[in-house]
Amino acid sequence: MDQTAPLADTSHQHVVFPDGMALDCGAHLPSLTVAYRTYGTLNAARSNAVLVCHALTGDQYVAEPHPVTGKDGWWDAVVGPGRPVDIDRFFVICANVLGGCMGSTGPRSARPGDGGPGTGGLWGTAFPPVTIRDMVRAQKRLTEHFGIERLFAVIGGSMGGMQVLQWAADYPDAVFAALPIATAAYHSAQNIAFHEVGRQAIFADPNWQGGRYWQGGDVPARGLAVARMCAHITYLSEQALARKFGRRLQGAPKTAGEAISLFGDMFEVESYLHHQGSTFVRRFDANSYVTITRAMDYFDLAADHGGDLTQAFHGTTTRFLLASFSSDWLFPTAESRAIARALNRAGANVSFVEIGSDKGHDAFLLDEPDFHRTIAGFISGCAVHAGL
Amino acid sequence: MDQTAPLADTSHQHVVFPDGMALDCGAHLPSLTVAYRTYGTLNAARSNAVLVCHALTGDQYVAEPHPVTGKDGWWDAVVGPGRPVDIDRFFVICANVLGGCMGSTGPRSARPGDGGPGTGGLWGTAFPPVTIRDMVRAQKRLTEHFGIERLFAVIGGSMGGMQVLQWAADYPDAVFAALPIATAAYHSAQNIAFHEVGRQAIFADPNWQGGRYWQGGDVPARGLAVARMCAHITYLSEQALARKFGRRLQGAPKTAGEAISLFGDMFEVESYLHHQGSTFVRRFDANSYVTITRAMDYFDLAADHGGDLTQAFHGTTTRFLLASFSSDWLFPTAESRAIARALNRAGANVSFVEIGSDKGHDAFLLDEPDFHRTIAGFISGCAVHAGL
Repeated sequence: MDQTAPLADTSHQHVVFPDGMALDCGAHLPSLTVAYRTYGTLNAARSNAVLVCHALTGDQYVAEPHPVTGKDGWWDAVVGPGRPVDIDRFFVICANVLGGCMGSTGPRSARPGDGGPGTGGLWGTAFPPVTIRDMVRAQKRLTEHFGIERLFAVIGGSMGGMQVLQWAADYPDAVFAALPIATAAYHSAQNIAFHEVGRQAIFADPNWQGGRYWQGGDVPARGLAVARMCAHITYLSEQALARKFGRRLQGAPKTAGEAISLFGDMFEVESYLHHQGSTFVRRFDANSYVTITRAMDYFDLAADHGGDLTQAFHGTTTRFLLASFSSDWLFPTAESRAIARALNRAGANVSFVEIGSDKGHDAFLLDEPDFHRTIAGFISGCAVHAGL
Repeated sequence: MDQTAPLADTSHQHVVFPDGMALDCGAHLPSLTVAYRTYGTLNAARSNAVLVCHALTGDQYVAEPHPVTGKDGWWDAVVGPGRPVDIDRFFVICANVLGGCMGSTGPRSARPGDGGPGTGGLWGTAFPPVTIRDMVRAQKRLTEHFGIERLFAVIGGSMGGMQVLQWAADYPDAVFAALPIATAAYHSAQNIAFHEVGRQAIFADPNWQGGRYWQGGDVPARGLAVARMCAHITYLSEQALARKFGRRLQGAPKTAGEAISLFGDMFEVESYLHHQGSTFVRRFDANSYVTITRAMDYFDLAADHGGDLTQAFHGTTTRFLLASFSSDWLFPTAESRAIARALNRAGANVSFVEIGSDKGHDAFLLDEPDFHRTIAGFISGCAVHAGL
């Protein structure tokens, strides 16, 4: 398979807002497309909607096979019939984020007035920088499109959790319950640094071509793969890597000399990382990666409220569940605790739980029964309060 | 300055062993050059020698300005007159490691029987893989060249600490005191993974040319810079990055829109990383980086002794000081503690101290008075026992 071939053009369910949308950077998108998936049925009162917000490299295919990779939905464990977010009870919506590459307006979209996809007139790096608030604004348009005034719940992990916080801060009356998972109210210097390493790896790829790689036809696959490999390490924990791979070698060297003479995939952990890198480039766009990592880097909810996170949630009636994972070093528990403190100071209704897990940041996507029971219990309780 | 220009050819003090050296991989180096620096005076009994082992990107210029960068010696704080390793008392030796790029035999060396430097007949990626034990073996040759039968002390941090452990295991009678600092007895899966990201970034650089970049004249500077940037994050702590840079922006945007519209060095931490990457490529060779990171990855002292680290130190009379730093997540305290336990089981004379510091792995190179007092005290005590 040609790793540098452009992403397949896949059609996605979507809605177009022809009036476009104003962005935080001052630019105005001439047209806005939001690609999305829904699961379950919206009730007559339109009061049972749950918005799921995806993470950096996620998309709208939460609870069904992915149209490009064929893999199971990324949050099948949490969203589905009888799951904590029960699609037999709730109407679940998930939208591809603004700036993404799975159908919502982003760097892969045609740039209006500049030809169209067939002529190569794509946004590329000319796509304006977007923020988490811009992403949420686009989601708000989508919920209005469905005639939903108030979401029963907004839930998401990592960058998805940032969106949940932004929703609760910007549209408190439109969010009955908020579940920001494994996240933070700002992106830390270390996290910005890791993102920048990934971006520099992409920029260093000769196929990058200043972001106009769609003109030449070869995508910066190696750079994007390196970015993914670097990021992937931060999603796991030292313990998880040690348990999964330790220092096991690929294959079995026949002599002591052979154990130190191989140049390729020496250790299993390397082979695993290579696989993560090479599968990622088949489903993700480099310009989207740059745009979305930047959006995370910009995120600083307190800074938008005079430096005081409490002000972001002043007078809120939203019910919050914060969850962190003990071995998550990308969005450590201390960050969730800081959000909980700010919510407490704001007089909000807030639960906070740290889930014991050695699986690192990725734990929020994995089989963590304690975590799933915690979400299920919180949502059931909120449903009673919401009269559902 | 042309970032892709090859490293300057600098002459380094060195000794040539024309009989070469056998390597762990089974290859035999036809000739061995060890570049080194010394400080202080060897006493008549040849009993006051201290060997300093450098880390991955260090070199022999411990306590004097660097001939390429002009910067102060990398361990000026520890080695010098009146310093913990006092060159008024001790004869200090530091050798560029085998596989390095500052004068010792490595990928930048001429490959015997294949032309010579002028004709481009360099080792490059044909240079055999080396191990930490090979590096120590080359250092042993150097100490024999000086007529030193027993080193008063061997000291080093990070990969330098791996060499200290290897010295103590392989040549117990030749090491009176050993100071492995901020290190581990094996390279962990996470650390291997970070190294592999760096190597992949180098391999992805079009100038890499399968390692034969010295033929074209342009070095894989961008790939090497990305590798350095990624590694550099692991040398620091989240706290250190937050204190040094936080989320401060480069320059001052005039409008809110400008704060999210910049594509270049947005945050100070990015500018800092770029600087780390670009200065590194002026003093380091990509093939050496690959060779030495591999040597670290191979390192597993227990595996060489039937899986039991205690056996590596059975019956040793060497006095050990282990030091770790509380915020070091690359070589965390638990790794030093594991070494201390093995030494205790081996009945060795061992001190172990965890230094409180929020500076991460790099703390061993920085101004840490507690650390320096600890080394100074241990060395003074050992000097009494050694009759110096």
